[in-house]
Amino acid sequence: MASYNPPIDDIAFLLNDVLDFDGQMQTLPGYEEVSAELAVSVLEEGGKFCAGVLEPLNRPADEEGCKLENGLVSTPKGIADAYKAFVEAGWAGLSGAPEFGGQGLPRATQILLDEMLSSANLSFGLFPGLTRGAVEAIEHHASDELKAKYLPKMISGEWTGAMALTESSAGTDLGLLTARAEPVGDGSYKIKGTKIFISSGDQDFGGNIIHLVLARLPDAPKGVKGISLFLSPKFLVEDDGSLGARNGMSVGSLEHKMGIHAQPTCVMNYDGAIGWLVGEPGRGLNAMFTMMNAERLFVGIQGLGIAEAANQKAASYARERLQGRSLDGSRGPVPIIEHPDVRKMLLTGRSFIDAARALAIWTAMQMDIAARHPDPAERRRADGFVALLTPVVKAAFTDFGFETAVISQQVFGGHGYIREWGMEQFVRDARITQIYEGTNGVQAMDLVGRKLPMEGGELAGRFFDLVKQDLQAASLVPATERIVAATASALDRLERTTELLLAGSGDPAVAGSAATDYLRLFALTAFGWMWAKMAASAAAADTPPKVRKCAVADFFADRMLPQTLGLETAIANGATSIIALNQDLF
Amino acid sequence: MASYNPPIDDIAFLLNDVLDFDGQMQTLPGYEEVSAELAVSVLEEGGKFCAGVLEPLNRPADEEGCKLENGLVSTPKGIADAYKAFVEAGWAGLSGAPEFGGQGLPRATQILLDEMLSSANLSFGLFPGLTRGAVEAIEHHASDELKAKYLPKMISGEWTGAMALTESSAGTDLGLLTARAEPVGDGSYKIKGTKIFISSGDQDFGGNIIHLVLARLPDAPKGVKGISLFLSPKFLVEDDGSLGARNGMSVGSLEHKMGIHAQPTCVMNYDGAIGWLVGEPGRGLNAMFTMMNAERLFVGIQGLGIAEAANQKAASYARERLQGRSLDGSRGPVPIIEHPDVRKMLLTGRSFIDAARALAIWTAMQMDIAARHPDPAERRRADGFVALLTPVVKAAFTDFGFETAVISQQVFGGHGYIREWGMEQFVRDARITQIYEGTNGVQAMDLVGRKLPMEGGELAGRFFDLVKQDLQAASLVPATERIVAATASALDRLERTTELLLAGSGDPAVAGSAATDYLRLFALTAFGWMWAKMAASAAAADTPPKVRKCAVADFFADRMLPQTLGLETAIANGATSIIALNQDLF
Repeated sequence: MASYNPPIDDIAFLLNDVLDFDGQMQTLPGYEEVSAELAVSVLEEGGKFCAGVLEPLNRPADEEGCKLENGLVSTPKGIADAYKAFVEAGWAGLSGAPEFGGQGLPRATQILLDEMLSSANLSFGLFPGLTRGAVEAIEHHASDELKAKYLPKMISGEWTGAMALTESSAGTDLGLLTARAEPVGDGSYKIKGTKIFISSGDQDFGGNIIHLVLARLPDAPKGVKGISLFLSPKFLVEDDGSLGARNGMSVGSLEHKMGIHAQPTCVMNYDGAIGWLVGEPGRGLNAMFTMMNAERLFVGIQGLGIAEAANQKAASYARERLQGRSLDGSRGPVPIIEHPDVRKMLLTGRSFIDAARALAIWTAMQMDIAARHPDPAERRRADGFVALLTPVVKAAFTDFGFETAVISQQVFGGHGYIREWGMEQFVRDARITQIYEGTNGVQAMDLVGRKLPMEGGELAGRFFDLVKQDLQAASLVPATERIVAATASALDRLERTTELLLAGSGDPAVAGSAATDYLRLFALTAFGWMWAKMAASAAAADTPPKVRKCAVADFFADRMLPQTLGLETAIANGATSIIALNQDLF
Repeated sequence: MASYNPPIDDIAFLLNDVLDFDGQMQTLPGYEEVSAELAVSVLEEGGKFCAGVLEPLNRPADEEGCKLENGLVSTPKGIADAYKAFVEAGWAGLSGAPEFGGQGLPRATQILLDEMLSSANLSFGLFPGLTRGAVEAIEHHASDELKAKYLPKMISGEWTGAMALTESSAGTDLGLLTARAEPVGDGSYKIKGTKIFISSGDQDFGGNIIHLVLARLPDAPKGVKGISLFLSPKFLVEDDGSLGARNGMSVGSLEHKMGIHAQPTCVMNYDGAIGWLVGEPGRGLNAMFTMMNAERLFVGIQGLGIAEAANQKAASYARERLQGRSLDGSRGPVPIIEHPDVRKMLLTGRSFIDAARALAIWTAMQMDIAARHPDPAERRRADGFVALLTPVVKAAFTDFGFETAVISQQVFGGHGYIREWGMEQFVRDARITQIYEGTNGVQAMDLVGRKLPMEGGELAGRFFDLVKQDLQAASLVPATERIVAATASALDRLERTTELLLAGSGDPAVAGSAATDYLRLFALTAFGWMWAKMAASAAAADTPPKVRKCAVADFFADRMLPQTLGLETAIANGATSIIALNQDLF
């Protein structure tokens, strides 16, 4: 069985040849010293850790799972040690703020590490991923005192973080949550309530666990405007930074899940847990969204990471497994990679993966530009792109990621269904990414209902103009005809559909009925854009990806982009047939 | 949590109003007494057994799984008792030949029972399903002596059956198998070899287990022409029918699987197991295919059954779960079934399920016509349709069935990922149906490479003519405009694509590259055909399904059939981009 091979060459190609990483990042204050060369050498080391330490734990940890005994969570054998090694090697603080001890590398570097973590061990990757989300919320919204007390040890990874949002009757609709926070009088609050589905809610790595908990103040109004965010640590922290008494929270139970078995997903009971406000009272969702946008990009990357690992294993198996005869009938048994349908399955996955990685890096670079560019107009411009692309990355990467896991499993035939081969774990693990951090249906509604109307309905058009410019540039390079033409057609469909939705934006049934199809149409077009850029760069470059990129671009043009035809037509057919049926007749 | 509700009203509508079950079946010798009324009342009782006895075991049996201790297989608690009750109530022999003690009901009745078994407990349903497959092979190919000795107790269900084909290096490519059979001299053979993935390979129900094993005679040529089929019982059977000595076979291990945990999928060791030839030496695959065609229809039905159960639970949950606000913003929290995207997920599943059930019944009726019609021309005609539809039913029902399980899980949000809710089990269980009995890629190649060229390339055209006739008839009924027009367009695409493939049939790369997309295009068109028939019948009928059928038909026309646009275009774009890339560059 082939082991995971970090896609370093591919990353180098994207940073150097396609996305002008150096040019884009070095103009940003604080990133003057950043370079693709540095990023690649860091990621090469990170990849070794993922492939060498984390991936070998993935299968056994899935089999063993987490346990809760006498109120104590234990993670599967090897996970705690791996986490400590991860922290000691400095991986936790890769993109953390230097003022709190982080290494301050750009977000694109971070997400590429996240991708490799997700390829090697999705459950493991959630620990640093959630910590980083919590760090972002604290950094942007907490008092200087809280920042000073908590951020350094969270950024170093010595302490981990958790997001406590969901309750059994409040999932997508957080306005329904009932957890309470009562002021103690000294600036702290006592939190009471039960939260479910809390990833990394507890662990056995030592250190502390910093929970960000959504709860209501006593006088809070109903609905989302009554929600505040609180920082509540597992162990109270003394003024000297040492760990004090156990706070009033406990793990009620571990969720029994389809996958991510090495992740202790907790039911958390807060029984008067001491906490402190993060941000203004009643602005908890606002603070949480800071965290959630970063997390949504991260979850999209998880879908990409699983797809990369699954596709690699499937390609490797397809080269080794001998069944059936060659196309001309003259040889047999042949490696199944000679069979067109097997190739098609592998190319379907690959044509998503490479484009998604490019789009993720591009989006991450926009996040850095939005945060750091000296020109406010540039910051706003980039911020708009991030807002637009975040739901697309989260939902499309996880949908295509899951589909890639499934078809990669299919390449293995019956062996794919057997646990020892590891392919079915990818499917089970990938499945959560379509659900958590806002279901993919919620992402699609965010795109159609909230993002399209931004900037007076001009935001998407601004993005489409950028795509057109790049298609124009790519069209000047030979051998890009098919991907450029197919993407231009897809963009026409997307533009027409966008106009249709903006025109009908008064009617929520139109938006709701179109949303998931529209997001997929958008994503396919954006992937086509990245393929056009990659093909143009590959045709000009003299690096190993060249032949592969041009061939996979053609596959994407010929066999994937035609999906946009049906998506446009389905949306144009309108909401009537979705709305008509009485709910009792479903 | 809603329990499974057997779709009896829907079945009655299909048999009575849509598919003229009485008229079609009563002209067949032996079925003169058969009627929809009888079938529905039998299925009503069968449904009670499925919902009352089997469904409550589904979740606990999944958690417990099967065990192998000291060479003995044990199934989860309750399964053996349920099997005995199933046999005692006479369900095993529903469609069995009356001359061997079966009840001789038509195949359509059988597959509708199979659907309910699959909805309630997929693992359980495999026991009688595989027995029936083995019965078919024995009935058609074994000697009278073997038939008399084995069939009565297999048809009653007292003994179960298993199909032992796959070896670790011989899956799709059975020509590579190495199991051997040596003549003993008394007409029996000693079988040696190891088989994997043997569903129902052993059980703890008592009785006997009849293995049909593919193996090679000592002088057999290489490849598929050297394969013979043998009947080998777990216990040798005395002349008086009683069980004698244990035969030389044992369970090497149980496979560790993604799902169907209540099914003991065995690695079987045959260490000189005594067996008898079924059919001619070297004609084993031929005999096996008799069994496999019936099994392929059965596996398609499994996909349908899981989809029905998953969709029912999702619809029920969506009516009860309160999250978010009504479309006009005036009420909240509302049942999530008010949200368009949730409706779309439910309708996507439902629009597959109802059409698939209709198509399955139609195909099963063609199988009976092919077996029994007095006019040989009618038999041949029906036999062609069965050949054409078998791979479509197997692959499309399981692909759409899996997709339905996934989106039904999605309706549950985070709860869908939690084992207690049962939705993730549907996904894990459904996944095997896309793989076993010939992967769905193999089915697609069977359709394109073997079935399209049948009857000099005229078979598919004959089927398309039938669809056209029915569309013409449906178009005369008001309120069918959208489904008739959309299906007619899909049929145009399918016909053009069929011509393209028949024209290119000299090039296996063309067929192989088109196959899976073509099968989906074919299936969508066939589902549209069934929706047109259902909508026309529903508009005329005065039964509860009426409003639902017409509304779901419109949804299928508006939102599902547009997929055919992309499928046609993708296929028309040709094989080049699939074939071009060197296998080392994947």
